[in-house]
Amino acid sequence: MSEDRISLAHGNGGRLMRQLIETHFFAAFDEPALAQGLDATPVPATGGNLMMTVDGFTVQPLEFPGGDLGTLAANGTINDLAVCGARPRWLTLSAILEEGLPVEQLARLVRSFAEAVRGSGATVLAGDTKVVPHGQGGGAYLTVTGLGETVRGGLSFAGIRPGDKVLVSGPVGDHGTAVMLAREDFDLRGDVRSDCASVLGLCEAAWALDGLRFLRDPTRGGLATVANEIAQATGQGIRLSEPCIPLHPATTSVCEMLGFDPYYLACEGRVVAVVGPEDAGPLLEAWRALPEGAQAAEIGQVAGDAPRVVLETEIGGERLLDELEDDPLPRIC
Amino acid sequence: MSEDRISLAHGNGGRLMRQLIETHFFAAFDEPALAQGLDATPVPATGGNLMMTVDGFTVQPLEFPGGDLGTLAANGTINDLAVCGARPRWLTLSAILEEGLPVEQLARLVRSFAEAVRGSGATVLAGDTKVVPHGQGGGAYLTVTGLGETVRGGLSFAGIRPGDKVLVSGPVGDHGTAVMLAREDFDLRGDVRSDCASVLGLCEAAWALDGLRFLRDPTRGGLATVANEIAQATGQGIRLSEPCIPLHPATTSVCEMLGFDPYYLACEGRVVAVVGPEDAGPLLEAWRALPEGAQAAEIGQVAGDAPRVVLETEIGGERLLDELEDDPLPRIC
Repeated sequence: MSEDRISLAHGNGGRLMRQLIETHFFAAFDEPALAQGLDATPVPATGGNLMMTVDGFTVQPLEFPGGDLGTLAANGTINDLAVCGARPRWLTLSAILEEGLPVEQLARLVRSFAEAVRGSGATVLAGDTKVVPHGQGGGAYLTVTGLGETVRGGLSFAGIRPGDKVLVSGPVGDHGTAVMLAREDFDLRGDVRSDCASVLGLCEAAWALDGLRFLRDPTRGGLATVANEIAQATGQGIRLSEPCIPLHPATTSVCEMLGFDPYYLACEGRVVAVVGPEDAGPLLEAWRALPEGAQAAEIGQVAGDAPRVVLETEIGGERLLDELEDDPLPRIC
Repeated sequence: MSEDRISLAHGNGGRLMRQLIETHFFAAFDEPALAQGLDATPVPATGGNLMMTVDGFTVQPLEFPGGDLGTLAANGTINDLAVCGARPRWLTLSAILEEGLPVEQLARLVRSFAEAVRGSGATVLAGDTKVVPHGQGGGAYLTVTGLGETVRGGLSFAGIRPGDKVLVSGPVGDHGTAVMLAREDFDLRGDVRSDCASVLGLCEAAWALDGLRFLRDPTRGGLATVANEIAQATGQGIRLSEPCIPLHPATTSVCEMLGFDPYYLACEGRVVAVVGPEDAGPLLEAWRALPEGAQAAEIGQVAGDAPRVVLETEIGGERLLDELEDDPLPRIC
């Protein structure tokens, strides 16, 4: 793989993407807030009262079991604000449409988007539409910027300590698996649905706890990538317990059949929390009381050794969960 | 042209695009601020102190005489805030990159973007990168959201009155012409350069005038489209004087040769102002004192008859400048 041209791995959430962004974006902008690597950034003149985030969405196919490009774009942005302690308030939507897209399909995607936005209590303040010639667009790309009001401050990598617990709000890997199955080049049908949903309710439950250190939604690159981001940002190791990580059996089967590792596959409606040990129980209880958190679990802890992610397997072995190199699934979100 | 699939004309700034947005976006969001059709929208909870805008950029080729995708994306967003009376402060940048894009070219585009942003006094607060497979991206698409601080309120279509004067800050159609010439499918070379630039200085000069009603940068669809937008929003006619509209001779020649109408071609560094008659002279003087406004001109007026745009030609005739139907130049911005 040539390193002087953009490859799919530059978009997978892993090492090449991180290096591309650090070398060519952070360097050009020289803005310290960017380099913190959080999902949203405080808007300075508002004293941190407002948080801002942006996300581009290129999922293929545009509609899949459990969601579509519209729900994905709305919830992805809502979730990036929520995990940073902010309630989503105002959004902008930019649509890049490919010539030939059925107008009725566009209408469905926009309605899905609008419904998810309304459900979060946010409103759309500005929009833009561009059309690119047939063959240059992949149907439709949406980019959503979100402005949210900070409710819970102090969430960052900096608060994470050895001994903190790692929790996840539900089964992992469903979105990645569902999208993969929905692509025509796999001749498989399963009953896996994307978990695409707002995590605002789950985050609100977590904001209430003093011992909450950090939240992140495990999208591109999945749970393993979030764990690696925490390890790199804190210099601490992360130990995850394989038997504790919730997985839908259908997702496990498909992944085994196709040779994918569900820990690296995107979720779009789950959240990973790091909390002080005293708050692991209360958070688990609060999450399990919500329908979207019924299968929440404590899955590991911060262990103060080398900054790497170790998976303790069912039979007592250990497996290193490395940073992603190649992209397992382009256009997953 | 089928009306049930997206066509290039849905992206040209003209009638089909307006109808698409009204039918499928405004209807889904039910947000009154959107339907005002301005380039930026006040953020409610800030009492209108902050304004928000978004723009997607898909220009082809990615680099052209006078600018590139990066300068275009930065200035396009800066200009949308400036014409709404706001000083740009915080931006987000979303990049959708096509597999195979040379990394060095990406670095040039990002540097151009960063330089233009710095020149405006704004900073980039958040970013996102996606990579789409080769053949699905057209090189690179950038989407920029801008948050600005309102300096000059009260700019809207609502203040426009019969007898108001229409001014433009410089020659029109250069960006569209330069981009068209830079495409390999034209075997023409001219000395036309894109006018791509910030109009913040021009807008600041205009903000100072009490009689200023409305500002807009004539991008997609050019001067004729801005004039049509004013006519439709106000119900007033617009009369433009052809001999008064500044044009670079090279742009005129190329347009004559290729059969394009420069009044419909995009500018990316010009601004159109509507002012009360008493402030037309002062605005012209203020603009001409700036290097980027040296060729500013008064080009017409608001005439209280039917809501259409009439061009008074050099030889005393009249020509109707209709709303755009087909797209003369896809991927112009």
